[in-house]
Amino acid sequence: MQEIGPNEVAKETTRVEAFSDGVYAISITLLAFNMTVPLHEVAERSGGLVVLLAGQWPTYVAFLVSFLLILVMWINHHRLFTAIRRTDDTLLILNGFLLLTITIVPFPARLVSEYLGHPDESMAVAVYNAWVLVAAAASNLLWRYAAHNNRLFSASTDPKLVASILRWYALGPVIYLVACGLSFVSPVAGLTMNFVVVIFFALSNTRLQGLIEE
Amino acid sequence: MQEIGPNEVAKETTRVEAFSDGVYAISITLLAFNMTVPLHEVAERSGGLVVLLAGQWPTYVAFLVSFLLILVMWINHHRLFTAIRRTDDTLLILNGFLLLTITIVPFPARLVSEYLGHPDESMAVAVYNAWVLVAAAASNLLWRYAAHNNRLFSASTDPKLVASILRWYALGPVIYLVACGLSFVSPVAGLTMNFVVVIFFALSNTRLQGLIEE
Amino acid sequence: MQEIGPNEVAKETTRVEAFSDGVYAISITLLAFNMTVPLHEVAERSGGLVVLLAGQWPTYVAFLVSFLLILVMWINHHRLFTAIRRTDDTLLILNGFLLLTITIVPFPARLVSEYLGHPDESMAVAVYNAWVLVAAAASNLLWRYAAHNNRLFSASTDPKLVASILRWYALGPVIYLVACGLSFVSPVAGLTMNFVVVIFFALSNTRLQGLIEE
Amino acid sequence: MQEIGPNEVAKETTRVEAFSDGVYAISITLLAFNMTVPLHEVAERSGGLVVLLAGQWPTYVAFLVSFLLILVMWINHHRLFTAIRRTDDTLLILNGFLLLTITIVPFPARLVSEYLGHPDESMAVAVYNAWVLVAAAASNLLWRYAAHNNRLFSASTDPKLVASILRWYALGPVIYLVACGLSFVSPVAGLTMNFVVVIFFALSNTRLQGLIEE
Repeated sequence: MQEIGPNEVAKETTRVEAFSDGVYAISITLLAFNMTVPLHEVAERSGGLVVLLAGQWPTYVAFLVSFLLILVMWINHHRLFTAIRRTDDTLLILNGFLLLTITIVPFPARLVSEYLGHPDESMAVAVYNAWVLVAAAASNLLWRYAAHNNRLFSASTDPKLVASILRWYALGPVIYLVACGLSFVSPVAGLTMNFVVVIFFALSNTRLQGLIEE
Repeated sequence: MQEIGPNEVAKETTRVEAFSDGVYAISITLLAFNMTVPLHEVAERSGGLVVLLAGQWPTYVAFLVSFLLILVMWINHHRLFTAIRRTDDTLLILNGFLLLTITIVPFPARLVSEYLGHPDESMAVAVYNAWVLVAAAASNLLWRYAAHNNRLFSASTDPKLVASILRWYALGPVIYLVACGLSFVSPVAGLTMNFVVVIFFALSNTRLQGLIEE
Repeated sequence: MQEIGPNEVAKETTRVEAFSDGVYAISITLLAFNMTVPLHEVAERSGGLVVLLAGQWPTYVAFLVSFLLILVMWINHHRLFTAIRRTDDTLLILNGFLLLTITIVPFPARLVSEYLGHPDESMAVAVYNAWVLVAAAASNLLWRYAAHNNRLFSASTDPKLVASILRWYALGPVIYLVACGLSFVSPVAGLTMNFVVVIFFALSNTRLQGLIEE
Repeated sequence: MQEIGPNEVAKETTRVEAFSDGVYAISITLLAFNMTVPLHEVAERSGGLVVLLAGQWPTYVAFLVSFLLILVMWINHHRLFTAIRRTDDTLLILNGFLLLTITIVPFPARLVSEYLGHPDESMAVAVYNAWVLVAAAASNLLWRYAAHNNRLFSASTDPKLVASILRWYALGPVIYLVACGLSFVSPVAGLTMNFVVVIFFALSNTRLQGLIEE
């Protein structure tokens, strides 16, 4: 059993990234297909196109929150794989599980679009937040596996930086659990909390930047 | 904090491009899914397939304008990233905002398909042009951020060339604002203006070519 | 104006290929979404699932012909870009036109699925073959532009081999024109001819192989 | 006819992988679009959102089995192309056939979603397992072609390891044939067997790992 040369490594992680990028890119693009166009016959009967488009605001909210969520999760994935030097089967499976959670996101997004403003809106937002909790957990799992004893990172990766990122990420599932409960008090608050958290993670990504600049 | 070697840089921008290419490619391909096939039972009752297909002309118009728009925006993106030597978090966020505007394009395109030739056609075309205005603004933002003090470009990039491209691009949002207003006078004129502008930007891309040949 | 180094060239054509691969991959994958699942209530009333699935044979025929068509066109595209050493704006536009023809293929494929076995079947198959003719013409255009005076090929590309490929490709549009006319005599014959031609082009691709091995 | 340099080889297989990755990524992502959102009016009439979501369990089962199936088939494809050093036309055609089987997977998955719990459920699961059998056969074909006399592998690839992988893979079609028959006895058992086999193949992938580490 030989050492792996740098070319094989590059090829290996490149392909996992290509596949993952594809899944993220398709999931994020398909979000926009949850927006439906009101039929022109309906628009003529009920106050015109503008009124109908404005009435679809839950769809735009669900789109925005979900787009930002997938974007931030992709940026994190991108950072992780910048640091990763090799892959193994467990990583591929854990990465697969994370991708599964991503591909499903448009489904709870459609739930929120359909139910916001209707009797079951709390449940719809709770399902949405519960699913984001699962996705955050999957992301945590992948990071922890790769980081354990610097398993898949290069020797030059700073263990302290990684440890600080891991502590930070561990907050995600906890916060989303609170957001999930909050949805039953107020669905709008539950969704807003989700949105704020994603923005917050997006802005705090500068820590991850360090992984590359090390 | 070390200097980034050429490999890391290549890897970094490569992945942002791969993700972006995916989003552009999926958005442009899904445009064709706005074309619906008339049911054969309907065709038998109402003059045959040819008549029904011809009656769907607004769908073809919306497809053509949108396809060309996304293609030209992808070419510009491609040019920008040929010049870019590194990425940072702000760039990823701004790039994410640009991608958001791209993924939504098929939605106003469906609006135009549904409403052209019906009472709300002016509003549908105005929404379309307004959205293209947002996309042009997002593209401007990304270019300006990357170009500011040559921030993310290599040292050899010609600042005068970049400045001339930026001045040129700044026209985009202004022209689309006019096209948006024009839609209320005549939706066909509003759409035609959009189309002409895209063709014009496509043909004037030779300036961008310089960015690579420098 | 400097010479372009090998890295820039690789980056340039790589990204055009990545975008094109995306469009081909999405178009070919979405073909399978023309297959609809009969509702279980309908199956219970009308002879069961097997009978209903068998009755959808036009969908499977349209899928198979279109899948093979896009696959062979992708292989040709792949061969062309293996020989190409640089891109320019005209190439990007011509490549965009070819991609436009590819993204639309699922639409005439749905037409064939819906109309085969019904009054307008000749027209549906003729539209399908006419569209393949447009796609073949777009492919010809791209090859001719790249090959003209060895414009975008490397100096080591054999001009005689390229000329022989171009002569061979020029047959495509002519044959599809005949297939288009044949559809009005017999839609099944028109579709079969299309299928046979694609198989034939697939098998004759060994000539293209030479482009790489030179 | 010259020897192919390492760069051309890399470019060649890279592009086949990119196209294939695209097809796998899109197919696996579109699986989630089989999940439909119950309309809020229906939910109000019939016990609420939770009851309706729970009633869609066959959709989740079909999703899970199919997601894991495509993921494991992608991992295998990834391993195969890590070992492959060059491509030829037959490989491209065989790879195309394998991709055809992958793109269709969401269709039998929708069949299972629609029919599980209804009269034709055995037939739906049998069709699903039969299709997986075809996909497994296509995968076998590709491996056998590439491995025959080490045709497309590098000289350093261990023929014994490859032979052991081929023997192992040959089991796939046989097992799926049994699963197909089992579906008529019990659809749940047929689906469970499929699931167990995929898990089993996923876990046994460590053998494939050897292909890279050689």
